[in-house]
Amino acid sequence: MSKVILSIAVTLDGFIARENGSVDFLDPFNEDEENNKWLGKFLENLSAIVMGNTTFQEYHKYPGFFDYYKGKDIYVFSRNPNLKNDKVMFVNETPVEFLKNLKTEKDVWLLGGGKINTSFLESNLIDEYIIGVIPVIIGRGIPLFAKSNYETQLKFAKSEEFKSGIVNLYYTKE
Amino acid sequence: MSKVILSIAVTLDGFIARENGSVDFLDPFNEDEENNKWLGKFLENLSAIVMGNTTFQEYHKYPGFFDYYKGKDIYVFSRNPNLKNDKVMFVNETPVEFLKNLKTEKDVWLLGGGKINTSFLESNLIDEYIIGVIPVIIGRGIPLFAKSNYETQLKFAKSEEFKSGIVNLYYTKE
Repeated sequence: MSKVILSIAVTLDGFIARENGSVDFLDPFNEDEENNKWLGKFLENLSAIVMGNTTFQEYHKYPGFFDYYKGKDIYVFSRNPNLKNDKVMFVNETPVEFLKNLKTEKDVWLLGGGKINTSFLESNLIDEYIIGVIPVIIGRGIPLFAKSNYETQLKFAKSEEFKSGIVNLYYTKE
Repeated sequence: MSKVILSIAVTLDGFIARENGSVDFLDPFNEDEENNKWLGKFLENLSAIVMGNTTFQEYHKYPGFFDYYKGKDIYVFSRNPNLKNDKVMFVNETPVEFLKNLKTEKDVWLLGGGKINTSFLESNLIDEYIIGVIPVIIGRGIPLFAKSNYETQLKFAKSEEFKSGIVNLYYTKE
């Protein structure tokens, strides 16, 4: 059965992006060969990539974005019915409805941002967490999850250090 | 020379305490022998413990609090000049002034919370960071640092896994 994996980079102070959505603090780490190799392997096990529209609007400006995720189905969650982009599928459903109808062979990557992460979290739909802790403090930004009353304990699986100073922390649902 | 070490437990979603200051989510981990042994060793290298008053008011209710930190000088930062407790020293100075006058043989533990962490951070006074990532998500709470315009890159040193699922991440000032 395919799993939903939240895999995302987080600053040491808990932010996945700046308040304006920028992830420029990741730039020094994009050259990290070890990390890119890891990402290539991670992508091999995926059928689909799920993200919120704010994240999509920020990310798809990067040159090579669509090439990079070639062969993966990209789903962008938004309540706006007028969005158009022939390279992705816009979704206006709950995460539960979406996953019920999704036919995938391989895993699903939940890529962020904070709002869509929280929707999936609150519906207990995240099977695995891979949190890449970036050795920077940025002071303010968009947190990993939006404020919520949901609480959960996770099962720690393993950690992985990269020479760049990124540490991947792996958890599964309890 | 003695170092200032920020050592603190943080939930996976980046909180050091609940909004009301409670750290009850740490209770299941307080029995962790490995972690307690680690803490004992950590304490051996310390002369002084520094915390904010909100943190002090929350922590010193725990039975055995003062026994635990016996032999260490406890400094509690607060702007309120009327606080009294003969087991601690209240401080109404900036972190820079405080450290200038502090005579210690061993290291200084910056214990939190978010506001005092941020004061020390913004003055570039934190030499080492030991962030204990707790495998829980609590949805809302007091973040590791208060909102700030301060940004910094850290140097990752090492990580350390406990059987309980806590992972300690070590960093130093760049």
